[in-house]
Parts: sequence; structure tokens; C-alpha cells
Amino acid sequence: MALPTYETLLYDVQDGIATVTLHRPEKMNAFTTQMRDDLVAVFDETDRNDDVRVVIITGAGRAFCAGADLSAGGKTFDYDSRGESARDKYKVNGIYRDGGGIATLRIFKSLKPVIGAINGAAVGIGMTMQLPMDIRMASTTARFGFVFARRGITPEAASTWFLGRLVGMQTALEWCFTGRVFDAQEAKDRGLVRSLHAPDELLPAARALAREIADNTAPVSVALTRQMLWHMAGQDHPMKAHQVDSRAIQARGQSADAREGVSSFLEKRTPVYPNKVSTDMPDFFPWWDEPEFK
Amino acid sequence: MALPTYETLLYDVQDGIATVTLHRPEKMNAFTTQMRDDLVAVFDETDRNDDVRVVIITGAGRAFCAGADLSAGGKTFDYDSRGESARDKYKVNGIYRDGGGIATLRIFKSLKPVIGAINGAAVGIGMTMQLPMDIRMASTTARFGFVFARRGITPEAASTWFLGRLVGMQTALEWCFTGRVFDAQEAKDRGLVRSLHAPDELLPAARALAREIADNTAPVSVALTRQMLWHMAGQDHPMKAHQVDSRAIQARGQSADAREGVSSFLEKRTPVYPNKVSTDMPDFFPWWDEPEFK
Amino acid sequence: MALPTYETLLYDVQDGIATVTLHRPEKMNAFTTQMRDDLVAVFDETDRNDDVRVVIITGAGRAFCAGADLSAGGKTFDYDSRGESARDKYKVNGIYRDGGGIATLRIFKSLKPVIGAINGAAVGIGMTMQLPMDIRMASTTARFGFVFARRGITPEAASTWFLGRLVGMQTALEWCFTGRVFDAQEAKDRGLVRSLHAPDELLPAARALAREIADNTAPVSVALTRQMLWHMAGQDHPMKAHQVDSRAIQARGQSADAREGVSSFLEKRTPVYPNKVSTDMPDFFPWWDEPEFK
Repeated sequence: MALPTYETLLYDVQDGIATVTLHRPEKMNAFTTQMRDDLVAVFDETDRNDDVRVVIITGAGRAFCAGADLSAGGKTFDYDSRGESARDKYKVNGIYRDGGGIATLRIFKSLKPVIGAINGAAVGIGMTMQLPMDIRMASTTARFGFVFARRGITPEAASTWFLGRLVGMQTALEWCFTGRVFDAQEAKDRGLVRSLHAPDELLPAARALAREIADNTAPVSVALTRQMLWHMAGQDHPMKAHQVDSRAIQARGQSADAREGVSSFLEKRTPVYPNKVSTDMPDFFPWWDEPEFK
Repeated sequence: MALPTYETLLYDVQDGIATVTLHRPEKMNAFTTQMRDDLVAVFDETDRNDDVRVVIITGAGRAFCAGADLSAGGKTFDYDSRGESARDKYKVNGIYRDGGGIATLRIFKSLKPVIGAINGAAVGIGMTMQLPMDIRMASTTARFGFVFARRGITPEAASTWFLGRLVGMQTALEWCFTGRVFDAQEAKDRGLVRSLHAPDELLPAARALAREIADNTAPVSVALTRQMLWHMAGQDHPMKAHQVDSRAIQARGQSADAREGVSSFLEKRTPVYPNKVSTDMPDFFPWWDEPEFK
Repeated sequence: MALPTYETLLYDVQDGIATVTLHRPEKMNAFTTQMRDDLVAVFDETDRNDDVRVVIITGAGRAFCAGADLSAGGKTFDYDSRGESARDKYKVNGIYRDGGGIATLRIFKSLKPVIGAINGAAVGIGMTMQLPMDIRMASTTARFGFVFARRGITPEAASTWFLGRLVGMQTALEWCFTGRVFDAQEAKDRGLVRSLHAPDELLPAARALAREIADNTAPVSVALTRQMLWHMAGQDHPMKAHQVDSRAIQARGQSADAREGVSSFLEKRTPVYPNKVSTDMPDFFPWWDEPEFK
């Protein structure tokens, strides 16, 4: 079956690994409302497609994503005066929902692990779109910046929820207050990115980590685990996790995957998990009420 | 007075330090429902016993805890089909409360500091039971693994609440997605364990840290501090801490311990605190409503 | 216009940077109820004064702040028996609100970034008052201690909410359980302080970081960003951030600051932002209900 295509993204699936490439290389992959919609659509596809075990996101050319497309100049962020109709479908009670947040909340809900392979400059939304990805690996040539306060606006894409949980409050505040662009080494030292790689070794390294997940683990287990970890990050008591994981252990403990997982381990062979994310998520999933924009 | 004994644990108290040793060495201390019950019981004992200032948990033999006992093979986690009656007392509305969570929520409530002295392999529940311990010290020979997705199940023991708060979301997600076993150095580098020690220096180092607490601090102060820090980890605003610590300073400020703490400091002598955890916790404690399993 | 003066603080504003100096050098800047009131007052002033872009807090003499003034000896924390009337205005339903918390909750609400320049010993409230500051830079001669359990009391100043978010739970618990005094290198290694400096290079380094903020960023953007990051630290879902940042991008995107920020960037020139914190905070600010002491 042919894979879907997108105006601003390249999309490919090989051996269980989807590669999503931000693809406006002549514009340093600057973010647009079309890219917003394409990102939502591609994560609907990767969730639905059982051939996809892990999603890698990278950029075409020398940048990862240079932020918002500034071709409208000083009116870039003044959507009303620009009459930009692509924003209207996300207008709620007179408020335009931020496009970066539409994208990052969709990534937050992904049923597949998401690895950012940050190949070059990543500023503004090019930076904040990475935060709901699970793991960030970067080229030694990558650069990063929470530049919002230098443009007269503020951090967006729900980044103020994510950033402190990734790098601690002190670094989060410093990066957002100064708005300065920093290099890959600082991103690694402060815990934003997991590992640095020579430019031509970045995608192979991201694929090797994706392989480790795809070759050894049960897809339904990983989908549940992703949502459990992200949702528990903001809960007030470990009892909240106990309620969910008791149900998860009960449902998954009776599954064919659990029989295969334990048997293959005891028999020292490669597991072949029968359950699929498209059809075999347990009844209690999702266990949360999806919050509405108010 | 003779100390209580346990089927799956060794228990000893010396000079204010309780040592709890997981003791099924022929099974690499694999976790069972009996061990679940013994862990709950031993923390009831250490809370009650004013001779205990600090609890150290370690494993007998070369492993810390190899995870769930897999002797039931592929049906290990399928409690209904195994008819395992030891689970029934924790069945609520048709859901078996996870045994690992029963243990970790009990450790979470401990009134005494808990130091994990991780002497060897620690995977599955052998890994997740460590997370509500306050401080983890490890042998250089220890190994760790959140192997759940490789067994077709999910993380348990409320670990999805704890893990991101200990090592950040990026590492938490990577470890749980890959399910791989990692060594003591990685555990140290990523912040899971506080310090590494040669195998025969691990328990002496854990005892030295326990001594530093036992010899210098007021038991009631430490019990309050432990619950304040853990409970505030999930609260939405620092006002929640201000409400509790205002009460704590008022109650403790009038105590004989505070008079002794300040006087001994000014007189440069070793303090002798009169208050006991068994009888002198302040009236406002506990300040929270214990959440129920739903 | 002359700057206000304070009994226990020095206060100066130069080129957009306010320097607040704890000033009881003969007492190692020990904290008193007067210092509590002066700290609240000075942050009211820095919020109101548009000439202030960044606040630096440091100590006079060789200490930063040696903690509570212990001149009342064993009765130091027993406010009722001391009949200390300066506490009465913060008595709510028979509970004295902790003075450290009065100060730290005021710092938490600051509309300007706060840099702690920790020049020497900082223990007790001298330690915990630093936690709601955004960035801590320290002299190599600084020392730190959460000494409360050694005085028979508990951590205060809402520190149990802040500390785990800054250094992780393991370090937070160890420091508070042992109550030991630790050096600047440990503070840096565990993530409490951002950077270490020779004693006479500390204030210049703090001012250089303050300059980077003051020279490049929009004041209203920074004020919003500060509250967004701190308030989202305890929220349960990224949708909470999306609701706020959608409003922030909409309001700020139409602002003269955003036009100047993008235009100056495209024209590669220094920005001159017209909006002021005193008059131009957007209508939706504050978006939260301030919690009351109960």
C-alpha cells in the first residue's frame, strides 16, 4: 500500500521505522500552518500504521527548523491583521490556538516512540516542537534557541510545561530569559539532548536506537508505557500511577504478548509479539479525559 | 525485645540502623507475593520502632532482586488463570492491585529515610522497588533494567510516577522503551544512583551515610521532612508547601527538640533529641487525605 | 527620583540592573522579620520600576545569609513564647505564616528575572530563600546547608516544593536528611548553582548575564515567560500551557514589541522595545487565581 504524502514533509517507512523529514529546505524548514497540519496528519498515520514501531523526525538540508516563517515581517505573529484563514479552524472563543501547540500536543499523544534527530539549526518552534519528542539526538553542528523574548513574543507550543521537566527549572529559565542561541555541546551538557553525533552518523545512530526498541519490545506495551510516563509527569501522587499500572499489568499479564515475552526470554530466543496497537490496546485505554481548550 | 522475623527478608537493627536484606538467594531474590507482604510488614515495624533511625535495603548473594519469580513461565503475570489466592486481598472492583505498587506505596509512606544498597542485578520489580527509596547507592557490579516491554507487560510499582522525577523524562522514556539492561556506570551518569562503590565497600558506605543522619538530626524532623519533600513533588503551587511548613515550624519551633537543636549548636556539642516518632509527631500530621485505590 | 531605602538591605539600580544586598554584615546577614518585610517591599519596588530589567541578590561581607538570627537561643523558633509581635500580621487561624515563605512566595511572583549571586555561607533560610530565584551563581567560597533537621525543625520557605524541581528528589532528600553543610563544588555538581566564580568575579559575571537579558529581550515578554515557566512546573497536562501560551502569542503577536522584535532581527540591529511592564501586561494576565493561605 502506498504511503501518504505531505506538502511540507517527506515520509518513509523501512523495517518498522518511520522517518519524517521537515522539507522546506529552501526556507530552512521554517514552520507554517501547512506544516502544522502535516505534522498532525503524519502522527495520525504513524499511530494507525502497525508497520511503524518508532518515528524519527529530522530536517532536510542544513537546518532542522529555523522557526516560524518570518516572510510576513513585523506582522508575522499578528494573525488577525494578516487575515490568515488557515488559523481559523483552531479559533476557540476568539482565541487562536497556537499552531506550535497543535503540533506538540499531537506528538504528546503519539502511540509510537518519537526520536528527534536534530541535524542543524533549531530555533523558536524548531526548538519547542522537539520537547514532546521522547529522545533528542543531535548533530555536533546543531544549534538551539528559545528566541521568543528577542522577538517580543513568548515561548509557545506548550513548551513551558515540557522544558522544566526535561532540563530543570534553572536552565529552562536561563534559556528562555536570554533567548540566546546555544550550541550542541551546551544542549548535551544541560540534558536537553541525549547524545551528539558527527553529521553523517546522526541518522544511523537514531536508527540504531529505534532498532533496539523495534526488535525487542511489544508494540502495545510500548504504546501504554509512553502514555503512562508522560501522563504521570504531572500527577500529584504515585497512587495515580498504581491505579493505571494495576490495570495495565492485569490486562497485559493475560495477553498473548506476555506469554511470548516470558517464554522467549526463558527460551533465550527472539520474541514475536502477536498483539497490534491498531486492534489490541486494552479496554481501560485511554484512562484519562482528554482536556479541552478553554 | 526480639526483632520480628520474615519469610523472605532478613532484618537486623544496630545502632539506629535497620538493615533489610531481600533473602531468597537461590532465586536471585526474585519477588513473590510473600515478599510483597513481608516488605509491607517490615516498614510497619521500622516506622513503629524508635530504635530505627534509617533503613537500608540490600540483597542476599550476588543479586539485589532479579524481578518477578518467573517459575510459572508464560502465565507468570496471568494471576486469574494461576488462581493465585495471595493476590485476592488486594482485589478491588475486579482489579488486582499490582503487588509491586503495594510495596512501593508502603515505602513511600515510610517515616524513616530509606537507602537502597544495590549489590547486584536489579531488574523488573527489582528495579522499580528502588524508586521510592530516598537514596540509591550501588556496587560497581550492579545492573539495572526496566525490562517490562520485553516481557509484553508494562512498568509497574507506580514507577511511571517516580522515574521521571528522578532521572528526567528523556532517560525515563529511553530506559522503559528499550527495556535494555544497563550497568552501574550508566545508572550513575544518568542520576539514578547517588554513588558507586566496590562490592565490599557498599554496605559500609551506606552505613556511613545512615550514621550521618542518625547522629546529627532530630527523628521527628526527619520524618516530617521526608513526607514534605515527597508530597510536594506533585503539588501545583509552592503555597501548598507554605501551608504545611508554616504549621511544621510552629509546632516544631516550640518543641524540646528545637531548644536542644539550637542550644547544642550554639554550645558546639552533640545534640540529644528527646522527641520520638512513635509519640511526638505534631497534631497536623498527616496533613493529607490518603488517596484510595479506585 | 530617589530610590527607596531599607533597614536590612542595600538597594541600587544601574543600567537596568537592580542589586539587592542583604545588609547585616555584623550578623552574617542573618534573617529577621525586618528582612522578611524588606524583601517583600523591595520586590514590590522592582516590579513597579520599569528601569529594573533584572534583579541580582547578594550578601554584604563574607556571608550570603547565615540563616535565622539565633540570638534568642533555644527559643528562636518559639514565636509565641517570645511574644514577637512582628509575626502577628501574618497570623492566620492561629497559625503563624512562616516568614521565609512570605519572602520566597513574593520572589516567586516577581515580574523581573532574579539572579542569586551567592558570595559566601548560605544556610537555613539563607539557603532556602535562593530557591525561587531563577538562576544561582556562586563564589568558590560559598557554602550551603539545609540544616533544619539539625536544629530540631523542618525545611521552610516553601523549599520542599522548589528543591526537588531544581536538583531532583535524590539530592533533595539527602541534603535535607543529613542537614550537612556542603561546598560550592557539590552545589554545582548536583545542579543547585549554575556556575562558580572567583570571589571578585562573581558580581561581574552575574551582571554580564543580566546584561544579556536586559540588552536583547522585551520586558513584557520576559515577565510573562517567568510566570509561565514557574506556574507550569506543577500543572498536570501540557494543555494548561497551551491555553496560556495561545493567549500570550495572540496578545503579544499584535504588540509593537513583536513588530520591533522581528523587524530588528531581520534588519540585524539592536531592538528598542516600546512596551513596559508597568502599563502593557496583556489583559489575560494574571491567568491564575492566587492561592490563599488556609
